Formats: sequence, C-alpha cells, structure tokens
Amino acid sequence: MSATPATDALEARFRRLSALSGASGMLGWDQHVLMPSGGAEARAEQLATLSVLRHELLTAPEVADALEAAWAESLTGWRAANLAEMRRAHAHATALSSALVDALSRAGSRCEALWREARAKADFSIVRDAMAEQIRLIREEADAKAAALGTTPYEALLDGYEPGGSVAKIEALFAELEAELPPLLDAVLERQARHGEPVPPEGPFPVATQRILSRRVMETLGFDFNHGRLDETLHPFCGGVPDDVRVTTRYDETGFINGIMGVIHETGHALYERGLPADWRNQPVGESRGMVMHESQSLLMEMQACRSPAFLGLLSGWARTAFGAEGPAWEPENLRRIYTRVARSFIRVEADEVTYPLHVILRTRLERAMLSGDLEVSGLPDAWNDGMRDLLGVTPPDDARGCLQDIHWYDGAVGYFPTYTLGAMAAAQLFQAAVRAEPGIPEAIGRGDFAPLVGWLRENVHGVASSTGTEAILKAATGAELSAAPFLAHLKTRYLEA
Amino acid sequence: MSATPATDALEARFRRLSALSGASGMLGWDQHVLMPSGGAEARAEQLATLSVLRHELLTAPEVADALEAAWAESLTGWRAANLAEMRRAHAHATALSSALVDALSRAGSRCEALWREARAKADFSIVRDAMAEQIRLIREEADAKAAALGTTPYEALLDGYEPGGSVAKIEALFAELEAELPPLLDAVLERQARHGEPVPPEGPFPVATQRILSRRVMETLGFDFNHGRLDETLHPFCGGVPDDVRVTTRYDETGFINGIMGVIHETGHALYERGLPADWRNQPVGESRGMVMHESQSLLMEMQACRSPAFLGLLSGWARTAFGAEGPAWEPENLRRIYTRVARSFIRVEADEVTYPLHVILRTRLERAMLSGDLEVSGLPDAWNDGMRDLLGVTPPDDARGCLQDIHWYDGAVGYFPTYTLGAMAAAQLFQAAVRAEPGIPEAIGRGDFAPLVGWLRENVHGVASSTGTEAILKAATGAELSAAPFLAHLKTRYLEA
Repeated sequence: MSATPATDALEARFRRLSALSGASGMLGWDQHVLMPSGGAEARAEQLATLSVLRHELLTAPEVADALEAAWAESLTGWRAANLAEMRRAHAHATALSSALVDALSRAGSRCEALWREARAKADFSIVRDAMAEQIRLIREEADAKAAALGTTPYEALLDGYEPGGSVAKIEALFAELEAELPPLLDAVLERQARHGEPVPPEGPFPVATQRILSRRVMETLGFDFNHGRLDETLHPFCGGVPDDVRVTTRYDETGFINGIMGVIHETGHALYERGLPADWRNQPVGESRGMVMHESQSLLMEMQACRSPAFLGLLSGWARTAFGAEGPAWEPENLRRIYTRVARSFIRVEADEVTYPLHVILRTRLERAMLSGDLEVSGLPDAWNDGMRDLLGVTPPDDARGCLQDIHWYDGAVGYFPTYTLGAMAAAQLFQAAVRAEPGIPEAIGRGDFAPLVGWLRENVHGVASSTGTEAILKAATGAELSAAPFLAHLKTRYLEA
Repeated sequence: MSATPATDALEARFRRLSALSGASGMLGWDQHVLMPSGGAEARAEQLATLSVLRHELLTAPEVADALEAAWAESLTGWRAANLAEMRRAHAHATALSSALVDALSRAGSRCEALWREARAKADFSIVRDAMAEQIRLIREEADAKAAALGTTPYEALLDGYEPGGSVAKIEALFAELEAELPPLLDAVLERQARHGEPVPPEGPFPVATQRILSRRVMETLGFDFNHGRLDETLHPFCGGVPDDVRVTTRYDETGFINGIMGVIHETGHALYERGLPADWRNQPVGESRGMVMHESQSLLMEMQACRSPAFLGLLSGWARTAFGAEGPAWEPENLRRIYTRVARSFIRVEADEVTYPLHVILRTRLERAMLSGDLEVSGLPDAWNDGMRDLLGVTPPDDARGCLQDIHWYDGAVGYFPTYTLGAMAAAQLFQAAVRAEPGIPEAIGRGDFAPLVGWLRENVHGVASSTGTEAILKAATGAELSAAPFLAHLKTRYLEA
C-alpha cells in the first residue's frame, strides 16, 4: 500500500479537476472563436455544469479531511509544493457560501450587461447602482477570503490572480513608478518631438498575407504548431491547454503594425503554457504561477525582445517580402520609431509602455478605495478624471473614454489590474537577467534565433511552474526580488538614449 | 412541495448529464476538425474524465432509488416517456461491471490500433487474436446487457444504437431484400449498360467555390448557420448539439460530385438534431430516437430528395454558375446518370443505394454469427469472401478490400450495421408518406423550396424525438410499421423506370 494514501487520493482528484478545467478552457476558446450566436445558451449550460462540478469536487467534505491527513504524510519536493497549491485552491473554493457565489454571479452578469449599455452611451449613471451592489458583494467576498487566507481583504482578491501578492510591495513599487514616470514621460515626449513623425507603411495588407506573416513570427519565437493553433477572434487571447495552446488574433486590413505585435504578445503567453513541465501536468504545481509571471512572459516577448532594433530589423525584411513593399516606411529605423511611439492617452489598452503603468496605478488606487469604502461608486467618474489629470495630464472627454473603458470591475474582477504592471517590471528584470546569463541573446534574436532566450525562460520560469512563489522564481532567476529598477532602466535606455 | 420529487431530482441529474454529453460532443468535434496532433493525449484525458463522470452520475446508488420512486409518481405524457428513457440509459450503464467496461475499452483500443496496421498491410492475421479477444468480451457485454434488458444478446447490443430493435424484424426485412435485390441488380446493370457512360464534369473545382456551393445547398435545405457551422475534416460527420450543429465535409479538388452529396447527407442528420423539440432540451426524451431514424433523415435528404431529377436540375444550374462551366457533362440528365450509377463493388462506403443493403446484410449475418460463436474470428476472411460472392457476385482481391475495410467491429461496435439499411428503408417510407401528405413537395424541391418537406419531417419525426419508439413514429407518420416495400418500390421506379 502507498505510504501517502491521502495525497494519492488528492492527486487523483486534482487530475480530474484539471481535465475538467481543460475541457472548459477549450469550450471557452470555441465560444469566442467559432461558436455561432445561437449556440450561446447551450454553451452556457455546458460551462456552468462543468463549473459546478469542479466546485463540488473541490469542496466535497472528504477533501478537507484528505488535506488534513496529507499534511502528516511528510511530503517533500514537488508533492509538498503541490499540496500547498491544493490547500490554496481549497481555501478559495470553500471561503464563500454558495449563496454568496450565486449572488456574485448574478450581480456580475447584470452589471456587465449594464456596463455594455453604459459604455455605448457614455453614461455612467446607467451602471452606477448595479456597480454599487457589485462592489458591496465583492467586499463580502474579500472579507470572507481574507479570513480564510489570513490576508487583508484586497490581498485576498489579489491572491486569486497573483498568489501571495502583497499590498505593501505593490505600494512601494508603484510609488517608485509614480515618482519616476511623469518626469521621464516629459523628457521622452520632448525628445520625440524633436524627431518628427514616423512614416506609416501603406497597404494593402491582405488578411491572407498577415496570416502567413503571423505564423512565421510565431514559428520564429518557438511556437509549436503541432501543439497549438492560431485563429481569429474579436478580442484576442491565449487559451487552450499546455499541450494544445490556442492563440488568437484579429487582422485589420488597414495595417499590420498592431496586429503582429498582438500575436507576439499572445505567443509569449503561449510559450509559458507550453513550457510548463510535462511531469506535473494536471496537478496544481504544474500550472502557471499567476498573472504576474504570465504577463511577464507576454511582455518580455512583445516589449523586451520584439520591439528591439534587432528584431525590428528582421520584421522589416519579412514584412517587405510578405506585402511586396519598399520605401522609407518599411525601414527598420522607421518601424522602431513607430513601435516606440509614446503619447499621453485616455485608453489603457492602446497605451505605450511608458504611460501604461500610470493607467494601472490609477485603477489600483481606485479599486482599493472602492473596496475599503473610501470611495463611493457614485464618485468614481470624478475620481477617475482627477487621477488622469494628476498622473497623465489629460482629462477624458467622457466616461466611455474614462472609467467605463475596461470591462474588469464591471465583470467582477477587482485585484487584477496591478498584475499588468508588475508583469511589465518582471519582464524587464527577467530579460536583463537572461542577457546577463547569455550575452548572445540580442544578437541571436536579430538572426531570428529565439532558442537561447526561450531556453533560458524554460529553465528559469516555465519549468518552475507553481513549485514556488513569484518572488522566489524571480530571486532564483535574476538574483533579486521584483524591483522597478530594471523596468525604469529599460525605459531610459530605449526612450532617452537609443 | 412538488408532487414529483423523485422525478424532479432525476430530471435535474439528466440535465447535467446532457450538458456533459454536449461538452464531450463539442470536444470530439474539435478533436476531429481542428485539434493539432500534439493535443491528443490531453484531449483523451478530458474526454475520459467527462465519460467517467457521466457514468458515475448515471450509476450512483440514489439513481436506482429515484427511478423506483418516480415509478409511483404517476407521470403522464412526455415525463412518463422521459422516465422510460432514463430507465433505459440506467439499465445500459449499470449492466456492466466496471472491470468489464475497462477490459472492453482496453481491448477496443488495442484492436483498433492493430486493425489500422492490418488494413494498411492487407493482413488479417495481424488483428486476428486481438479481434478474437474483443469479440469474447463483447459477448460478455451482450450477455450482461441481455439479462438487464430482457432481450437476446444481439438485441441488447442493437438496443444501444436502435432502442427496441428486433432481430425477428430485421431477419424478415433483410430476407425480403436478399430475395429481391440480386435480380433487381441484374436488371439495373443490364439497363444501365444499354445507355453508355455518363460524362464526368471537368474542373478545376476550387475548394473556395465548393465551400460557397455547399453553404448554398445547406441553406436551401434549411440549415440555420446561426445555430451551426460547416467545417472540414478527413472523415466527415455531423457533431455538436441541437442548438449548435457542426456539419463537416471534405473537399476534393478533382471533383465536387461526391462531396456535395456528402454535405447533403450530413445536413439531413443536422436538420434532425436541430428539429428536436426545444421544450425537451437536455432530457432523454428530447434526444434523437436512434440510429435508424437518424440514418433515415440523412438518406431521405441524400437519396430521396436530392438525387431526384427535380433537385439535380437545380444543382446543375448552381454548379455551372459556381464553377463557370458549360457543356453536356453539366446537364441535369447527365448529373442524374452520374448520381444513380450502380455497380457491384467491394467497398460499402462507396456503394450505391441498390447494392448497399447487400453489404449490410453480409455484415449483419457475420456479426451475429461471431457473437453466437457460430463463426470463429479466424474464419472471418473466408466467410466474408464467400458472402460477397453469394450476395454481390464479386470476390475482394484482398482483406483490406474485404473484412478489414470498416472500423466498426475493430472499434467494438457490433449491432450497428443493420441501422444503415433499416434507415434507408425508413427514408423511402417517410418520403413517400410526406409526398402523399403534401403532393407539392417534389415540385417545391425543384424550386429549391424545402420548407414543405422539412416542415412535414419536423412535425412527424424531428419533433417527436424519443417520446415514442421508431416503429410507433413510422406508424403515425406513414400509416405502417417499417417495411421494405417503399424502398424496393423506390429502387424500381428510379432504376428501372426513370
């Protein structure tokens, strides 16, 4: 008989949970990529059923007993780490009463539907009351999870996206950015103004050609089409499972500039999923570490590796061949200027890497204030506009381009926003460490050889999966815990010295 | 409190089962249409997990109790029929020990893998022993299910595909075909020889054009692209769920003749699924009746409606427009001769509607003999070749074109083959009844108006779903139980008189 019967039973159960979660992932991918609209109701029923079954499997009374018993089975190595992840998943799942889960789900659906209308009409009042109710329930959720996890309420929500995320750490890092970025932004914009506008490449940019170019870029980065696909959708994302990663994109026939960088971003996510250790497949320890590491992988590819002059030289040649075009607009230096253009803007998802953190700092500040009750939901539009003025020096002309622009809060996601900027910092820190470890990386990228970079990431990030925490992964990989310094140094080098 | 608590609980459970089954259906579709090969293992794990969960939900001890209690709840109408279907599903699921289920699954995988090799090498000896073991286990399965269902062993297997299917009925119908078809075939071939060969349309037949033509045909038949899709795969099938029906096809750039008829066949299946009553969605009573009715719907569209001169006139015009072609090969009369070509052949899936039943009669005879033990697996190749000589007058040159051609037995499906020909008979019987009820149907088809035909099928077949048995559906719709006469009359009219 096994010496670890309780752990064995838990591992079997989590293997099943992982398969169900993979099934949901594939069905979710299909829903956004292929499903005809008439299939929505049936799909919702399938996904809800899978979700309820997962919850039942995770919260069954015998799980608590097994977790208790497994504690005494003296596990070591990955199994010990796996048990810790099981406990975390169990704590999240059992923290909430089913009445609260149900209320959150209903409030979220209602609020999201009203948000769509409010954003379309640029009228916050349409969603205000639903949002207030939603925040009230999220506060209950945060309190319940905080009690279960032994954290502050905001950290309890953050933990759902970034396990172990700390408010004190975020405050310290964001304070540094908030002090450094505004003057940096002034300097960058002043310098940029002296150089004049880059020339936009002119089309046509047929979708069929963009498809071929996208595949070529993905293959160059190391995406394995034997274990994944590239398809099209309205709001691109990376879905699927590690052995079948589904990258999506949207082609725009008026230009390829943003589309190709979107593909690179999602490929960064995909390479992380694909690089998770096969030995731990279907166990919590084998999953990606959290949204900070995930975003670090997409931004490392997009911002660090592929907006570099080395890669843009390569892309310039491929794009000219693909679209059969020539001229100054297609020169590497012009592409570099397009891809490093900085502007004070209203919309986060269109922001460059210099201003993006300021958008995130604002959202983090406001969601913390709403959760604590310091900010009433009715005061959100004004607080948003004040914050934009302070941080970015611009005032949104309406709430559609202000506090209604992002789905996150209206969909129930509070505690998610900081992971974008923590991920950007981690990306810079990891890329610099990779180049220190393997100085040939930038030159290899210029030759289209991503193997040295991806090999380093496989070993230092992907292969570690959830066997330890984000800070420990960064410490081991880069010699330091998460810091703003590499990110700020990167911005200064790229935007003030290049 | 509800007066039917046991039934309510069962209906909730079967709703969940249906959602899981729908999820599996979509994942199975993806597996055959889109999944990269490297995703196979993860997908197998997802599908196996869903299958085990379904089995657990269906065989949980409380289900037997609830079925017992529901019996006393005096149900009427659809709920009574639904309960009967639940009992049938439960009987099938609980008939087998989990050891036998496991052994069947392993033997099936092993046998199928060896069959692929055996077929490729045209060497039956490669799969012989695995097949003998498979048949031994299937015999155990049939005995266990026969005891649970109160039928003969063969009928117990048949019941899994065609609920209530009767061996005596099949024997009677097949005896009639076996007496009538060989002389009919002689007469048809003699008549055909007097007319010379039809002219094959010449290409090119670009895939993009075939896609447009296929969509046009599907829309004409009444397929709703808001509730389904058309995609491509190696072995076409109709998958998905009633609100999101996934038709698949394979395009061949050397010709469109077979491809378009394949699309029509699958669209017949799709219209059945789509026409199942929305009120009974997610309950057993709302599912398609069985494989005979299903095949009747695909063959009714393919053989009865769309190989008719009226439809081929329409198709001739569409195809000429689509491919930009003209000439004698594209004339309706030439197309009619192509689409009604008859030949003695080795391969069932390529057979015409006159010879097809003889292929099925042979397989039914042999699988019954293997199940009863009258035929040893080692004697299969000889018995096959003898049967082909007797029934079709040809001898396969090797086992790849003989007893190795179909996957069914090697994949564990015994009792399935007869449904093809029972379906062909039902198709003729239903189509003739539809035309009697609505004499304008053939003329409407010639105008591309399938509404009268599909409307009649919706009312008499699709909308009835599983609320009663196949014979009762046919009796109500056509005035008679399943008979060979309409099918034979159809063949005589089309092949000896037209």
